[in-house]
Amino acid sequence: MIHPVILCGGSGTRLWPRSRADHPKPFLPLVGPSSLFEQTIERTADRSVFAAPWIVTGAKHADLVSQQLDSRSGARIMVEPAAKNTAPAIALAALRLPEDAIMLVCPSDHYIEDTGAFVDAVRMAAALAQDGRLVAFGIEAVTPETGYGYIKRGAALGAGFEIERFVEKPDAVTAKTFLANGGYSWNGGIFVFEAGVFLAELTAHRPDMIAGLRAAVEGGVQDGAQFHPDAASFAAIEGDSIDYAVMERTRRAAVVPVSMGWSDIGNWPALHNAREQDGDGNTIIGPAEAVDCTNVLIESDGPRVSAIGLENIMIVVDGDEVLVTTADGAQKVGTLHGASSQ
Amino acid sequence: MIHPVILCGGSGTRLWPRSRADHPKPFLPLVGPSSLFEQTIERTADRSVFAAPWIVTGAKHADLVSQQLDSRSGARIMVEPAAKNTAPAIALAALRLPEDAIMLVCPSDHYIEDTGAFVDAVRMAAALAQDGRLVAFGIEAVTPETGYGYIKRGAALGAGFEIERFVEKPDAVTAKTFLANGGYSWNGGIFVFEAGVFLAELTAHRPDMIAGLRAAVEGGVQDGAQFHPDAASFAAIEGDSIDYAVMERTRRAAVVPVSMGWSDIGNWPALHNAREQDGDGNTIIGPAEAVDCTNVLIESDGPRVSAIGLENIMIVVDGDEVLVTTADGAQKVGTLHGASSQ
Repeated sequence: MIHPVILCGGSGTRLWPRSRADHPKPFLPLVGPSSLFEQTIERTADRSVFAAPWIVTGAKHADLVSQQLDSRSGARIMVEPAAKNTAPAIALAALRLPEDAIMLVCPSDHYIEDTGAFVDAVRMAAALAQDGRLVAFGIEAVTPETGYGYIKRGAALGAGFEIERFVEKPDAVTAKTFLANGGYSWNGGIFVFEAGVFLAELTAHRPDMIAGLRAAVEGGVQDGAQFHPDAASFAAIEGDSIDYAVMERTRRAAVVPVSMGWSDIGNWPALHNAREQDGDGNTIIGPAEAVDCTNVLIESDGPRVSAIGLENIMIVVDGDEVLVTTADGAQKVGTLHGASSQ
Repeated sequence: MIHPVILCGGSGTRLWPRSRADHPKPFLPLVGPSSLFEQTIERTADRSVFAAPWIVTGAKHADLVSQQLDSRSGARIMVEPAAKNTAPAIALAALRLPEDAIMLVCPSDHYIEDTGAFVDAVRMAAALAQDGRLVAFGIEAVTPETGYGYIKRGAALGAGFEIERFVEKPDAVTAKTFLANGGYSWNGGIFVFEAGVFLAELTAHRPDMIAGLRAAVEGGVQDGAQFHPDAASFAAIEGDSIDYAVMERTRRAAVVPVSMGWSDIGNWPALHNAREQDGDGNTIIGPAEAVDCTNVLIESDGPRVSAIGLENIMIVVDGDEVLVTTADGAQKVGTLHGASSQ
């Protein structure tokens, strides 16, 4: 049995104005009729493979999580008293699971086209995890992205590989050599390991953190499906990412390569690419008319959008905000007054 | 004394969605804080040169006209019972003026930057009109526009010229030869002549029309500042433009060249050019943030517009409509579902 641990963190600003503080990215129906969070839950719904999930989220989003959870899912919700990055979030769930539970750690705001390939990779990773490995998904690098970390594979290891090294977000030239040389995958933040192994490695590398976490869980309160760790103990923790705190330090790291139509929907062009496009490469949601337009994204929650002669342009109408950007310009969405003053 | 006759006709669809059936182009503050109609009135406000104006408009726009008229203007309003193009509209005013009154016929939805040059040209045209001429303004052709008619000047005549011929909207190649050869001006629909001379020429060339017009005026009703011609008589008239009905047929036509920063504000790029631009060539009205944008028009009546990386793009937010078009694409605005289904 594999235990999904689904991380519902911050909303980010790169899909502003659609994604905002009060309706953040994981909970929006960005690709298809269900939200990315709902799709993440659905992806691990096969109870012959997966146990009921743990959802780790902040108090601000706990209601959204509850609203979008199917009551039959049996999901449990870990409500973080503060945002401390991914290592503490994952450890909270690990501390509430049996030591030998195989955990599948997933972000809640990514899109995965091929669920079959995903589940196959989970099974392969689980086999390595049972041998005491901490397994990262190595997502097939299809373009020289500079916005992701990379994983360089080492020697073969079962259905996967040892990890030679983790690489921080590279510059464009470096990213291109990665693709040309092969052996590099994207680090998508998806991990599989035994709860006990993860906690042992965290204890070895960040003993301070694990002590605070144990105190937070021991002082915590169960309230229906929700578990609330002790706020004071948790607040005292020095947060860190799982990559820095554990994965880049442990000698037990492994990688399972996977090609599953993955996207982190990290900006408007990424969302445009994940959506089904018409014959002119346009993706249109809401009332709109596009004349002589190619590779245009239009999304409106009400007003009609009329577009003429545009190429590689993203138009988003959401409430009292209208965004019009080139695909390249979309990298700067987070710096707009509207996005940064929420 | 020169009698302004200001034509407030249809609204058109080329500035949709800002200009719409219920708030048409002449009555919008498109350039500066006052409407084009108000600017047209203001341009002839010097009572040492101009008499109080006649406004010719349809019943649908009579209220808008009244609202925007200064009560002290002494303006009279001719309410057309139907739209019959410019020749009948002008003749209605001519029939209510003394025969020797010098009329200045002006559209109400054009922009003129240099009022001094305009008034100077009116004086020169009036001198020719007193000699029995029908004078068209020959607007300096600064670009090879294909959307205007052209006037080819002939022999010198006082402060102006005889008219060699009127030219229909040319194709791009022809328009370029006009500019290269010189002697061609744009026909901006601005005319100066004596009421009696105009009526005599209309009688000569369109006797059917003049009979219907006289009946409409004789059966008309004065209501305060408004005059309502008899609807049945007016409805029976076969409408026509002043160009076709009179100017292209008369032997009394003359042209006065004028350079006065004229624009018919005939589409969004024309409006962009008429407005004061910032250092990046942008014109922004309403709440907006433009990042890495050049030669962009943004106009919003409420929602904030955030634009990134755009060049030669027009963004217009008006109520429940959002238009985003290239400058070239703006020619097609009138064909949009939204613009054509008003």
